[in-house]
Amino acid sequence: MRLLFVGDTVGNMGVSMLQEYLPKLKRDLKPQITVVNGENATAVGRGISQRVYKQIMSAGADVITLGNHAWNNAEILDFIDQTPNLIRPANYPGPDVPGRGYTIVNVNGKQVAIINLQGLVFMDNLNNPFDTINAILEQVGAKTDYQFIDFHAETTSEKMAIARYLDGRVSALVGTHTHVQTSDYRVLPAGTAFMSDAGMTGPYDSILGMQTDLILKRFITQRPVQFKVAETGSGILSGCVIDLSDRTGLATKIRPILINPDHPYSN
Amino acid sequence: MRLLFVGDTVGNMGVSMLQEYLPKLKRDLKPQITVVNGENATAVGRGISQRVYKQIMSAGADVITLGNHAWNNAEILDFIDQTPNLIRPANYPGPDVPGRGYTIVNVNGKQVAIINLQGLVFMDNLNNPFDTINAILEQVGAKTDYQFIDFHAETTSEKMAIARYLDGRVSALVGTHTHVQTSDYRVLPAGTAFMSDAGMTGPYDSILGMQTDLILKRFITQRPVQFKVAETGSGILSGCVIDLSDRTGLATKIRPILINPDHPYSN
Amino acid sequence: MRLLFVGDTVGNMGVSMLQEYLPKLKRDLKPQITVVNGENATAVGRGISQRVYKQIMSAGADVITLGNHAWNNAEILDFIDQTPNLIRPANYPGPDVPGRGYTIVNVNGKQVAIINLQGLVFMDNLNNPFDTINAILEQVGAKTDYQFIDFHAETTSEKMAIARYLDGRVSALVGTHTHVQTSDYRVLPAGTAFMSDAGMTGPYDSILGMQTDLILKRFITQRPVQFKVAETGSGILSGCVIDLSDRTGLATKIRPILINPDHPYSN
Amino acid sequence: MRLLFVGDTVGNMGVSMLQEYLPKLKRDLKPQITVVNGENATAVGRGISQRVYKQIMSAGADVITLGNHAWNNAEILDFIDQTPNLIRPANYPGPDVPGRGYTIVNVNGKQVAIINLQGLVFMDNLNNPFDTINAILEQVGAKTDYQFIDFHAETTSEKMAIARYLDGRVSALVGTHTHVQTSDYRVLPAGTAFMSDAGMTGPYDSILGMQTDLILKRFITQRPVQFKVAETGSGILSGCVIDLSDRTGLATKIRPILINPDHPYSN
Ligand SMILES: [Fe+2]
Ligand SMILES: [Fe+2]
Ligand SMILES: [Fe+2]
Ligand SMILES: [Fe+2]
Ligand SMILES: [Fe+2]
Ligand SMILES: [Fe+2]
Ligand SMILES: [Fe+2]
Ligand SMILES: [Fe+2]
Repeated sequence: MRLLFVGDTVGNMGVSMLQEYLPKLKRDLKPQITVVNGENATAVGRGISQRVYKQIMSAGADVITLGNHAWNNAEILDFIDQTPNLIRPANYPGPDVPGRGYTIVNVNGKQVAIINLQGLVFMDNLNNPFDTINAILEQVGAKTDYQFIDFHAETTSEKMAIARYLDGRVSALVGTHTHVQTSDYRVLPAGTAFMSDAGMTGPYDSILGMQTDLILKRFITQRPVQFKVAETGSGILSGCVIDLSDRTGLATKIRPILINPDHPYSN
Repeated sequence: MRLLFVGDTVGNMGVSMLQEYLPKLKRDLKPQITVVNGENATAVGRGISQRVYKQIMSAGADVITLGNHAWNNAEILDFIDQTPNLIRPANYPGPDVPGRGYTIVNVNGKQVAIINLQGLVFMDNLNNPFDTINAILEQVGAKTDYQFIDFHAETTSEKMAIARYLDGRVSALVGTHTHVQTSDYRVLPAGTAFMSDAGMTGPYDSILGMQTDLILKRFITQRPVQFKVAETGSGILSGCVIDLSDRTGLATKIRPILINPDHPYSN
Repeated sequence: MRLLFVGDTVGNMGVSMLQEYLPKLKRDLKPQITVVNGENATAVGRGISQRVYKQIMSAGADVITLGNHAWNNAEILDFIDQTPNLIRPANYPGPDVPGRGYTIVNVNGKQVAIINLQGLVFMDNLNNPFDTINAILEQVGAKTDYQFIDFHAETTSEKMAIARYLDGRVSALVGTHTHVQTSDYRVLPAGTAFMSDAGMTGPYDSILGMQTDLILKRFITQRPVQFKVAETGSGILSGCVIDLSDRTGLATKIRPILINPDHPYSN
Repeated sequence: MRLLFVGDTVGNMGVSMLQEYLPKLKRDLKPQITVVNGENATAVGRGISQRVYKQIMSAGADVITLGNHAWNNAEILDFIDQTPNLIRPANYPGPDVPGRGYTIVNVNGKQVAIINLQGLVFMDNLNNPFDTINAILEQVGAKTDYQFIDFHAETTSEKMAIARYLDGRVSALVGTHTHVQTSDYRVLPAGTAFMSDAGMTGPYDSILGMQTDLILKRFITQRPVQFKVAETGSGILSGCVIDLSDRTGLATKIRPILINPDHPYSN
């Protein structure tokens, strides 16, 4: 089983990059399942809309994950409950959280759990991710063959900690949220594939997808600045591809995907 | 010299409380100078407008101070540069910060410096407040008779630390921002009046001036919630009155002002 | 039923203040139950020891609560499990947390639940306090007549939010942790007594109980500084006394206790 | 001019990795100047000692940079003032900060400024890094041919922001502190080489260099845990090599260095 994961899709250019490269990546890498983080996929870089959801699915995604920006476009409330392959972090607190935190996809008779989880350090006060993932794995562990987690978090320590905690219990855990790809992809000792951050997909000439001058203005003035998604220049697509053993459900290999002007696509 | 200070004015009810009680407080306490924090004074509880500025001045303020919400109503950029008695935290970084961080008021031939400063702990990354206040006092120390600081900060430790640091060098330092009055008002050993937080002025049946149900929803769901200023119920006015020695320029007494249904106004 | 609560006891001087004033307060106010926060009660101001525990109990406490410093003196692990009237925040995560998060005291045939809970904002990532308190109240609500919560938290908003959330469901919720008493004590509309922070008990000439020069050095240099508890000068004792209705179990009155050189004790 | 930079050296294994691989890297890559971050280089992973300083210099470093852990081993105060090639973040606040924030190295008649700077987001409240770097560049810009900055910071956004701000004004800016190497190395449009994080040098079977079980215990319990440097297993060395134009002083190329069992060293 091969899984392709693409990190935080930002704005129109992020969606365009998916439309251009997901077909090529799927043709060349032949993943059986493709997961895309879409928490910044609207034109303003915050949240997701039904239109953008459909664009990403049409581009080739099987499941879309989210993160702390999940709720920034209120339109999501209109369709997330009816959309099983759009998942939000499973550890949002409170009663009746819209949507779901994981989904199970049938791939040629094999069951693949795709799980979305969020970290706590320097982020919102969601429920304990260790407890949440334990509860989810109790539900899905026995009835799924593979488990993939998009762990949306800020710090490298929290990402590594939960990956080590789950080593051997899930197929792979890949981080998102910092919008910068890390080079620490590896299969951990007990068989879980890991990478601190998959990186982002969208405008390359930007700061995390946003217009450079506006981010700079915010840092320099510390006064409110309305960020805008960068719309010009070239694009970047970041992610990883993970090979899973049919026998163990664990990982045999993980390697990064990085497409940008400095690393043009080549199969 | 007697100075009256009123803490964070929130929304329409905050302005109404000023209109109702500032005249009574001035009549009964006879302060020579009145300072009001107005960082939440617009109808939506964020920033200040020219209209609200005029209302607060008409109600009896001589100087209006601000805080981290200073810039939330962009209209401020239209008039702050022409409004010497509206000041924002002096330690905002960057070139050409609109407005000024302190002002000097002539009260019967005595010069009173009113200074606005913001803390760093759990807040925006402004410039070092110790350096900023040192630079300001070098400029105004010799040519003013009294110095009052509204220190807008989150933690009690940072507020106490800067008060102790300035003890004997300024007339008074009073904190704002938490919207809850503290009972630690005192004249520090070297003569600076201090109080960790003056408290807020506005809707009493609220959480920090905002509608209780919306703040609760935010805490419980950790999802985005648009806060609204509470508009119904009774009001609260919080602050303090400080007596300063004409001889030393330092404080002889500080006592709290608290008006709400549980503490009705009485002179 | 009358309950006396005393806020964060800091260092030897904090314990001395309890030894001097708890007997007087109990003689004059006649509370049926006395609760003391002891999270800073060792000589170094961090955690609690068995010796200090006994001193505070001998001074007149019935129950001791803790906070984020609960574990800073490792000796606590030796006796907390055998000490039902020493409680730590109920929402610490993980399996097999030492000690307990609440206790039930029999006072003349009435059952009083004393509960310790910790906030999340700008603090460690404990479990969701809303969920934890709901679970505790499900267990103790029916079988207790009164419920008192020491909510150890940083921000006024989180403290007010949980108090409003619980209004009418518990007898009283009083905050601790900032070491500065607030003047917002009140009985909320549905009958729960509330106060954002009870304040601290210990060295008055200090910053939050610690030596002023060391705290200042830390703020000014941002380099590591070993804090020391202030040992000289006068003391402060802070807290509140709450009257509860025998009929409803809810509060009829809350008022602050504040003893320091500026507010000498008088019954 | 070619510069070799190696990221956060952690513990004894970090020093051993330098001793084993710096000679090989220097032999094969022939950098004219080698800079190593040593903020975690003592046996306990916090700060630096004179002994470790000498070991790293002997292993081949020309300059050692630090970060937020600079002061954790108090021994540094004994020798940093006499050690020009050991630098700490330039933007530490307060009077008389020990040591210096940058140094100038003469390399075959060319002057290379090595500058250490620290970020503010989710870190200590140091002075404004934009102001600090502007002041340093005013001092060293004209009299140096190359300028290299180790920017020790937590978030990708702050690292990118300051790199974009300085693009074309310094030769290179490379981030440290997260201990995980990023794959976003590139020469920015105006000629400054950039990489969000160089990554760490030390124990590979660890979380950021520390024993996995202890970091996990801290995340799961949220109680105090004494971390220990991992001492067993294989090692990792992370960094980058940057080529600078003799004509412009700007960068022509940056590429990562990563040595670990999954990426064995090969020249
Ligand atoms: Fe994102
Ligand atoms: Fe995110
Ligand atoms: Fe405010
Ligand atoms: Fe504020
Ligand atoms: Fe405390
Ligand atoms: Fe505390
Ligand atoms: Fe480090
Ligand atoms: Fe660091």
